[in-house]
Amino acid sequence: MNKKISEKSLNRLTLYHCILTEYLLKGIETISSPQIAALLDIDDSQVRKDIISLNNSGKCRVGYIVKDLRASIEKTLGFSKPKHAVVIGAGNLGMALAKYDNFTNYGLNVLALFDNDKNKIGTTVNGKRIEDISNLKQLAQKITVDMAILTVPRDEAQKTADILVGEGIKYIWNFSPTVLKVPDDVLVWNENLMGNFLQFAYKMRD
Amino acid sequence: MNKKISEKSLNRLTLYHCILTEYLLKGIETISSPQIAALLDIDDSQVRKDIISLNNSGKCRVGYIVKDLRASIEKTLGFSKPKHAVVIGAGNLGMALAKYDNFTNYGLNVLALFDNDKNKIGTTVNGKRIEDISNLKQLAQKITVDMAILTVPRDEAQKTADILVGEGIKYIWNFSPTVLKVPDDVLVWNENLMGNFLQFAYKMRD
Repeated sequence: MNKKISEKSLNRLTLYHCILTEYLLKGIETISSPQIAALLDIDDSQVRKDIISLNNSGKCRVGYIVKDLRASIEKTLGFSKPKHAVVIGAGNLGMALAKYDNFTNYGLNVLALFDNDKNKIGTTVNGKRIEDISNLKQLAQKITVDMAILTVPRDEAQKTADILVGEGIKYIWNFSPTVLKVPDDVLVWNENLMGNFLQFAYKMRD
Repeated sequence: MNKKISEKSLNRLTLYHCILTEYLLKGIETISSPQIAALLDIDDSQVRKDIISLNNSGKCRVGYIVKDLRASIEKTLGFSKPKHAVVIGAGNLGMALAKYDNFTNYGLNVLALFDNDKNKIGTTVNGKRIEDISNLKQLAQKITVDMAILTVPRDEAQKTADILVGEGIKYIWNFSPTVLKVPDDVLVWNENLMGNFLQFAYKMRD
């Protein structure tokens, strides 16, 4: 149950989760592994193998019960335990992420945004306050901030990451296009949008 | 030269590119493979292997010439040939992407944004007009639109993708959290932000 899942399998599980959420919203109650496989253009046996690794996969006569399989993936991926996050940088990307109500469904609770722009500080976005970055210490003392979502410009990123590390934040979801230097006990997940584009562009060469 | 590069190698090349851009901005002229390897916490031999696959890698006595290695990666990844893109959906995420001037450096030219919100249509963001989605046909007739960046809400995504396909757009960079159904000759690159978060959340379980 607690065995490590490979990155590729994790990635597929998140895609299955996306499909299952669609089905749930459409009111479809069951799904088969060939259906999932066809939607993702992968092998049916691969889908079944991934699902076997889950507990209570919701297997039924015609395939899987959408609700149960989805819950099982959620349990495996560990987002049944809610996490507190802050968005650092209240630019368009930070705003977009703060407005993304889906996060709550995935156990991510955005507490507040932080910025250094006096015109933004004190306003709210999607019911969340934009605070002065110097108030982060205060918040981090009151409540455990599990994760910071970093959306500041590239030339502010390292300086800001240093502040986050100083406040004891151990997980940084980094949207700034830069490689951050952090201590070994801090985990950075680089959302390399530009890098992703470059990979896509490579496919567009022909 | 035109041999296919593996996805993992592509991903690393984009990370090297990110580092090289940093160095260039800092005015550092040379870099060694152990330096790159240390920044990304990967093996030096891996870095050298990736770089050997490039032409004109800028090899010099102390490592590589930053400018040349960067240009070589750009050439390999194929973004020396500019591409025309449109952003579909002028919400916060669409706005953030339209403001992302870095795209131009990577050969991506955002022509315009499209939305169906009467209050947004006719305004500009970062010098780009927000147009009525019904005007896409007109634009696509005047200029080849290589790529659409899709940032509409989930329940608008498939309908909108159908319009894009109808206008002959062959590449869709999809930020909507849904699996799109498109013909075989259309390539969709799913920017699965939620899926990425779920993978990150999995690492946060302990």
